[in-house]
Amino acid sequence: MKILLDAMGGDNAPNAVLQGAAQAAQEFGQGMTIALLGPAETLKKAAAELSIDLAPFELIDCPEVITMEDDPVKAARQKKDSSMIRGLTMLKNGEADAFVSAGSTGALHVATSLIVRTLKGIKRPALAAQIPTLKQPFLLLDCGANAECRADMINTFGTMGSVYAQQIMGRAVPAVALVNNGAEDHKGTPLYREAHERLKTNPSIHFAGNIEPRDLLKGDADVVVCDGFVGNVILKLTEGVAGALLSMLKPVFLKNIATKLAYLTVKGGFKDLKKMMDSEEVGGAPLLGAAKPVIKAHGSSKAKGIKNAIRQARLCVENDLCGTMQKALDETLAAAAAAETAAAEGN
Amino acid sequence: MKILLDAMGGDNAPNAVLQGAAQAAQEFGQGMTIALLGPAETLKKAAAELSIDLAPFELIDCPEVITMEDDPVKAARQKKDSSMIRGLTMLKNGEADAFVSAGSTGALHVATSLIVRTLKGIKRPALAAQIPTLKQPFLLLDCGANAECRADMINTFGTMGSVYAQQIMGRAVPAVALVNNGAEDHKGTPLYREAHERLKTNPSIHFAGNIEPRDLLKGDADVVVCDGFVGNVILKLTEGVAGALLSMLKPVFLKNIATKLAYLTVKGGFKDLKKMMDSEEVGGAPLLGAAKPVIKAHGSSKAKGIKNAIRQARLCVENDLCGTMQKALDETLAAAAAAETAAAEGN
Repeated sequence: MKILLDAMGGDNAPNAVLQGAAQAAQEFGQGMTIALLGPAETLKKAAAELSIDLAPFELIDCPEVITMEDDPVKAARQKKDSSMIRGLTMLKNGEADAFVSAGSTGALHVATSLIVRTLKGIKRPALAAQIPTLKQPFLLLDCGANAECRADMINTFGTMGSVYAQQIMGRAVPAVALVNNGAEDHKGTPLYREAHERLKTNPSIHFAGNIEPRDLLKGDADVVVCDGFVGNVILKLTEGVAGALLSMLKPVFLKNIATKLAYLTVKGGFKDLKKMMDSEEVGGAPLLGAAKPVIKAHGSSKAKGIKNAIRQARLCVENDLCGTMQKALDETLAAAAAAETAAAEGN
Repeated sequence: MKILLDAMGGDNAPNAVLQGAAQAAQEFGQGMTIALLGPAETLKKAAAELSIDLAPFELIDCPEVITMEDDPVKAARQKKDSSMIRGLTMLKNGEADAFVSAGSTGALHVATSLIVRTLKGIKRPALAAQIPTLKQPFLLLDCGANAECRADMINTFGTMGSVYAQQIMGRAVPAVALVNNGAEDHKGTPLYREAHERLKTNPSIHFAGNIEPRDLLKGDADVVVCDGFVGNVILKLTEGVAGALLSMLKPVFLKNIATKLAYLTVKGGFKDLKKMMDSEEVGGAPLLGAAKPVIKAHGSSKAKGIKNAIRQARLCVENDLCGTMQKALDETLAAAAAAETAAAEGN
């Protein structure tokens, strides 16, 4: 198995990427080659400074770099010698099995659609992130790759999310829920009412109905679907509220000597809490619907985040995620087409 | 001034409503009559049990009750002898100055539109809630009254929210921001891009541009606008995440005797934090765009929430909120019409 790693992607590249790759090779490198893509001299110099031995890795020299300032569409079309475009092209050509990048989400999304292409029935991949809850994380999609969605897209998000939750997150019968402003079937906008109807008759999933945003962190759903604009709000607001609350707690403990001593007592508990809320534990967000596994690591990933994104990519390959997903999508789309034919005949 | 209070609205009615009314009468009852609407016998019995003297209040006998199970539209049209419909009709007829209810949001929204009607240029009122932040609360609208919105509606939310922030929340020059999935002008769906363009040229507000959900609780905006589906997600998710995090903290302190002792030390600080996050401190959400002041108190309001909702209603009347809002809306709509004419002539 060969996994391609964009060594120039993310705020902490290339150092954090190299460190993450080294950790991955050591912890679960058996039977897997990690190929590092980036300007060879830059990578060699960084590795030397970090005392990382590059011998276990394949090095693929890509002189160009895509930055956060680049226009995603232009970058995908023009920067052919960048680590991202070169990697996705190799993936497309069957020269490797998966691609991992902490680079620009927009560029990765566009370039994946253009180069790697998508599964049959999917026009553009969806970004799926795991959100921690009081119980276990749920998979949220679309997290912002597709700001505008149709109801049939939200329906396929349900199928793809369910397959991912089963294959990669180990949920036997994933409960799929639709974000909505009320639990009742008829709630929401026309888009959400139609999405609800489609999900209800989707034979490839176990649909648990609507979920209200207030209940998301209770952790009763395995997969939560919505359009990309709303998904982006949910992902970013959850981060924002959690961050704000934790920063509000600080002054509580800094008040006086007694409260500072109190902090020492509960410090361990807080560490567990922070670990639970730590996105680096998961590693990355898969672009579901891409024809081959593409994992977007968080832009601020440190070594641990990169390592765990590589682990995710490995799991996707080992479980033939894309093959299983295509079968489930075929079933979903056949059922939707049959329902439409029946409705047309009924009229 | 006369303020009408729906004594049968909310989970804790009529007891919490009567207690809130009694507190309001005592704390800021000067120059104001509070009229209690509900089945007279029920209210008298509850007041006697709570040892509340009904003498300072006007009692308006309304034998019917609207429940959460009632269909909002049907209830608004048929239950004419309910506290809500009777109150809104009195408000419409000039027999009182404002209406406060903790009852069904859907019924109150529909009935307000049908009976009290709306300001010129507004088709349906928006629900505006104050959200606590690291600094001061911001006003969020629409919070869910209008799941589907057009860009011109979001533009008027900006104007109405700005007037409310100025008149009632005491912000001299309110900064109005648009929720979006990026800070740049061109971000978002076509709806959000058009809303951005309109807000940018709205002469009645100080538009601060897009705000990302991650930054909402930093507290830099005074007014935040979006469609009602997204607003509902923001309102409910903020409550949900805050609640989940606080419940995650519990086991940290319950671990052993040392951590339990530690809790005693920081308890005061937590109380301040909880007070800051307490929606009862604000009281209620105004239905902005109604022709006269209508305040929706939280369904779970206790006495304090009701009292503060009455205080809000009083402030709206004292500041002639609706009159000021109509002037600002006239200006907003004239500018929008002029821009459209200019654009048409340009083509």
